Amino acid sequence: MKPITLAVDAMGGDFAPEVVVQGVCAAVRQSDLRILLVGNPEAISPFLKKEMYGDDRIEIIPTFQSIPMDASPKKALEEFPEASMIKAAKLVQSGAADALISAGNTGALVLSAARNIPRIQNVHRTALAAVYPTLNELKRKDIFSLILDVGANVLVDPENLVHFALMGSSYASEIKGIQDPAVALLNMGSEPNKGGPRYAEAYAILSELPHINFIGNIEGHDLLRGIADVVVTEGLVGNVAIKTIEGSAETVMGLGKMAFKQKFIWKLGLIMLSSGIRGLKKLTDYQEYGGAPILGLNKLVLKCHGKSTSRAIHNAIKLAAKSIRDDLTGNMQRSIRTFEETIIKPGDSYVTAYES
Amino acid sequence: MKPITLAVDAMGGDFAPEVVVQGVCAAVRQSDLRILLVGNPEAISPFLKKEMYGDDRIEIIPTFQSIPMDASPKKALEEFPEASMIKAAKLVQSGAADALISAGNTGALVLSAARNIPRIQNVHRTALAAVYPTLNELKRKDIFSLILDVGANVLVDPENLVHFALMGSSYASEIKGIQDPAVALLNMGSEPNKGGPRYAEAYAILSELPHINFIGNIEGHDLLRGIADVVVTEGLVGNVAIKTIEGSAETVMGLGKMAFKQKFIWKLGLIMLSSGIRGLKKLTDYQEYGGAPILGLNKLVLKCHGKSTSRAIHNAIKLAAKSIRDDLTGNMQRSIRTFEETIIKPGDSYVTAYES
Repeated sequence: MKPITLAVDAMGGDFAPEVVVQGVCAAVRQSDLRILLVGNPEAISPFLKKEMYGDDRIEIIPTFQSIPMDASPKKALEEFPEASMIKAAKLVQSGAADALISAGNTGALVLSAARNIPRIQNVHRTALAAVYPTLNELKRKDIFSLILDVGANVLVDPENLVHFALMGSSYASEIKGIQDPAVALLNMGSEPNKGGPRYAEAYAILSELPHINFIGNIEGHDLLRGIADVVVTEGLVGNVAIKTIEGSAETVMGLGKMAFKQKFIWKLGLIMLSSGIRGLKKLTDYQEYGGAPILGLNKLVLKCHGKSTSRAIHNAIKLAAKSIRDDLTGNMQRSIRTFEETIIKPGDSYVTAYES
Repeated sequence: MKPITLAVDAMGGDFAPEVVVQGVCAAVRQSDLRILLVGNPEAISPFLKKEMYGDDRIEIIPTFQSIPMDASPKKALEEFPEASMIKAAKLVQSGAADALISAGNTGALVLSAARNIPRIQNVHRTALAAVYPTLNELKRKDIFSLILDVGANVLVDPENLVHFALMGSSYASEIKGIQDPAVALLNMGSEPNKGGPRYAEAYAILSELPHINFIGNIEGHDLLRGIADVVVTEGLVGNVAIKTIEGSAETVMGLGKMAFKQKFIWKLGLIMLSSGIRGLKKLTDYQEYGGAPILGLNKLVLKCHGKSTSRAIHNAIKLAAKSIRDDLTGNMQRSIRTFEETIIKPGDSYVTAYES
């Protein structure tokens, strides 16, 4: 059997290439993976040397361009056609690598992947997913739920939402090992016709699909409960939702501090909690989880957090390898094909929020 | 001068009509307002008697229908054409009352108001606003920001977003007394072209308007900071955002409890904080704030929380009276007219999230 080969953008992330090289070396030491490490050899080599790594399973694919973390994605792709993440995407396109991992500029990675890696047949939009911690009411092994799209697209059509649901469901069952993952639409009310025609039609289609565990609409206040393994919505809504969650822990404590600063016992409580809050942040900072997938392509692309440590990179590599062993994208392709062959035409639709 | 007259839906809210009658009586005792109390006289009278209220400034407008809190809005309006909130809206329409207050079914109130009260000239969509507590980085007298739309519409066009911004700005300056309120778009990135053509065009227009303090796009994680007095977005996005915020305080603490239950000191900290958390909930439960406005109509409509107490009703009545004394809707009309007379045609627009 051909060994699994991953294309890793060595230049992406706030601490690149150091932490990327460290993560890659750690992964190769513990497995039989092959890594194509794309980036500036002069920047990469010293760290490889430091890791005392001599194995030929890590191959440097040289390029001297990389995309700044805060660059405008479209312009950056024009300005840096040889950028490490584009080159890494092309290695996946050509079949030289099985998956792409980058901690670089999110938008540029979404575009690089979309332009170079073919989409799953019939899928017209890729979705950017994110994992976020919940109260885990479903009592899963881990406390994370998957939400998509968090910003690859602004608006999508009902069929796109259904595709996102199917892909997210495949991801949760393959990667997290959940049988029949609970899939919900994030919407502005629980009723089937909420959210305008796009959501109402997606709801109608998903309700009829036999091969997905669709639990209906959930609302913003349900997100953190963890009542769905996979939360499906449009990019603008998902982006605002996930960023609102990200800011919450810190803000709640800040608000508590501000509102109750006169009360000594509250102050004391906050001080006692502060190491807990740090622990909570640690729990929620994605390091353990590795990376968030861009779904809809024939090959897996994992986006790691810009602040990823070597452990996060290592975990992302393990995640990518698992997805290849489990044939994640093959599973998604079959799921989409089954749906497209049994497509249900949506019925009546609704336009304004309260006209129901 | 003609006394201010308010139409109050006596039958709306979880504790109606008792708390509504109590709030109305408290308000009338402290002011020279007139109240048209719309609802079932048999249900209302005992509470009026209990309040020992005999003044003719409270007039019962009898009706025997009311809309259940959880009814589907459109169907409920067909089924209960004589419902208290519809009748109250018609009193505003006819000029018998200057503003409408209800703690009833939100969707039904939005529809009742939209169908009976004329819109401000050129305004094509009403917006449902909500007030939410922030860390108050702008150092205002109160810690609340206004966000709209939180669900009267799903999607709107750029001009609607601009109208929402102008109306929200008028509201913040008249009601909260803030000079030049900071107005932001809630979007998926800070760049001017983020969020697709609707947001990009609204951004372009707002940037050029001299009579609004537009500070640009903010993201989900900025919401609770309180860096904008008025946050403008589409109904689906605003609804998910405000509900995600609503659930946060409780969830963060729940997550902390779950993740760190082994550590005694964290547990102790949480116990010490619990009265603080109750205080925080109190601070954020809208009672003090009275009600959230439905903006875009020629008369003010205030939606009180379904769980409103008599104090919340009293505060909403004070808020409505202030808005009439300050000529809030006249101010909004002038603001919209000034904009429409100097409208700026939007330039290029952008379609996908990362194509920039």
